[in-house]
Amino acid sequence: MKLKSFQQYLKQQNVGLVFLVHPDSNITYFTQMKPSYAHLLITPGSAELQLTKLDQHPKLKNISVKTFQKKWDKELGDNKIKKLGINKSSLTASYFEKLKKIFPRAEFVDVSSQLDFLRSQKTEEEAKKISKACRITTDAFNNLVENFSTKSFKTEQDAAFFLEKFIKDSGAELAFPTISASGKNSSVPHHQTSNSKLRKGFLQLDFGACYQNYCSDMSRVLHLGAMGKQEKEKYEILLNSQQKATREALLNKQFHELDKVARKNLGKYSSYFIHSLGHGVGVDVHEQPSFSPELQNTIKKNHVFTIEPGIYFPGKYGLRIEDTLIFDKRAKILTKAGKELVKI
Amino acid sequence: MKLKSFQQYLKQQNVGLVFLVHPDSNITYFTQMKPSYAHLLITPGSAELQLTKLDQHPKLKNISVKTFQKKWDKELGDNKIKKLGINKSSLTASYFEKLKKIFPRAEFVDVSSQLDFLRSQKTEEEAKKISKACRITTDAFNNLVENFSTKSFKTEQDAAFFLEKFIKDSGAELAFPTISASGKNSSVPHHQTSNSKLRKGFLQLDFGACYQNYCSDMSRVLHLGAMGKQEKEKYEILLNSQQKATREALLNKQFHELDKVARKNLGKYSSYFIHSLGHGVGVDVHEQPSFSPELQNTIKKNHVFTIEPGIYFPGKYGLRIEDTLIFDKRAKILTKAGKELVKI
Repeated sequence: MKLKSFQQYLKQQNVGLVFLVHPDSNITYFTQMKPSYAHLLITPGSAELQLTKLDQHPKLKNISVKTFQKKWDKELGDNKIKKLGINKSSLTASYFEKLKKIFPRAEFVDVSSQLDFLRSQKTEEEAKKISKACRITTDAFNNLVENFSTKSFKTEQDAAFFLEKFIKDSGAELAFPTISASGKNSSVPHHQTSNSKLRKGFLQLDFGACYQNYCSDMSRVLHLGAMGKQEKEKYEILLNSQQKATREALLNKQFHELDKVARKNLGKYSSYFIHSLGHGVGVDVHEQPSFSPELQNTIKKNHVFTIEPGIYFPGKYGLRIEDTLIFDKRAKILTKAGKELVKI
Repeated sequence: MKLKSFQQYLKQQNVGLVFLVHPDSNITYFTQMKPSYAHLLITPGSAELQLTKLDQHPKLKNISVKTFQKKWDKELGDNKIKKLGINKSSLTASYFEKLKKIFPRAEFVDVSSQLDFLRSQKTEEEAKKISKACRITTDAFNNLVENFSTKSFKTEQDAAFFLEKFIKDSGAELAFPTISASGKNSSVPHHQTSNSKLRKGFLQLDFGACYQNYCSDMSRVLHLGAMGKQEKEKYEILLNSQQKATREALLNKQFHELDKVARKNLGKYSSYFIHSLGHGVGVDVHEQPSFSPELQNTIKKNHVFTIEPGIYFPGKYGLRIEDTLIFDKRAKILTKAGKELVKI
């Protein structure tokens, strides 16, 4: 993606070489590939992707593709790089030591913040891919609702499987393993989908597609069987909180202020909201902009992020409503599946 | 798993604390959990798992489970650890810097080799779980063959999906994303399964189950449509190579010697064998023992590893036959699906 901008930055900062090592989603960002192992070497004027023979070697624009040689480190050893960029958020301590040996005279600088910054504001091409991933996600959910019956869907896994098959049949991958949490399992936000039977009560679904390396992330709630007044009230309050936060997502507003808006609107249930309101979405399903109060990130044009308040009642049930949005002049919802509570 | 042995090692080495940070499969090894975020702190006499509120908090034997506190680093800061163990193969450079700040007086030592060593020889409990994962994998394949028809299986994804559904319905997870590679796609060992149509010729399947956190790994080949003499010959030579290597897997033999056996038996096709013969299998689908000539690992009791020669003809097709085995007095195949070439 923004390879040229990144190379300009390297020039300005006198960084002679950036050395990215698998696994690092920035390799996917620049190459639009997901190789099983790779190095990506970027200089102010060139870029080289090193792949093993296990992966396909495509032709890439502005990036030369080479096969790992047995003595690849020796080939690099003689160079005169003074300032070498690495991604400290991803590079392992042992690989860092290896690079220090290969480049004994280099000063190492962390380029992770610059990469995060470049990735957080999406290009038109990236926005298109994310929109498509969100459309597939929406269609998968609508299709599930149309086809849902307690006869054909007996376990959490059955529901997850339906969504995942739809996503894959649509030419996308999974953005992350689907969360399908029935009954009291839904009180654990990151419940691991199992083959346990679907029970009466809430069924929480949190899933996403990854279309041409770009993710979507959406959560919706179904309710199986008769519903009590309290359950209905909780859902309405949560939905109101999610919608209020969405409406107040305005240019230059701090993300953690938005978190406060959602929290305030949960009223008596605010203490049951035990996670952050959202996160950036792109090549990684969790990326910048972060909603952390420490970072004080503000909403900018072409940011893509989620808004996902949730309330969790330990041992009983939990509820979360989540959209992926893109900010243009306002926050536009990309995951357009309806949010009225689906009763089965 | 071998927590006590690890703690004994720490005592011997005067390591006061080992600090493991997510993502690190050693956390799963010791806790038998896959939390979405965690720290695991191990001292010679105790162990503490720190989890966020997003994951379930189970009761664990010999490990106390706590919730992350906002100022968790402050709580640790006052301690007097002199020697602190980390896993340099997994800890990121930025987290390493964070730990250096939290423990400014500590000497940091890498405990990754000891962890690799403990994990490479499986306990009876681990062996049982891996055997079960291998049985599920075998059953999935046999079921696929029974149900295979070009009507119901139209794309690579359809075949992968059938296997994956079987694995999940059996109460296991996927050990890794299934490789389903048809026609010339099979010439790329790590082909990314797509929704491209199944073609006449070889269909390479490489997949595995993960049962209670323990993996299996198996590759089998199907052939769709009429088969030429050359294709048949190549399959027979490959199978012979795989079986010879399996028979010669003897106690104390170096793994890379086994690699040579397989390579030699490929005869005129040995130059088309472009990867290593195998790898250890356990909590990670790729773990120690490594077959790398540099490491000179030798076969020991309770090692679990794969034997998987493959030959790849660029732009045409590729073939790989792979079993997961456990070494007792001899190498026992755990992935018992038949290896006669399945013709559809």
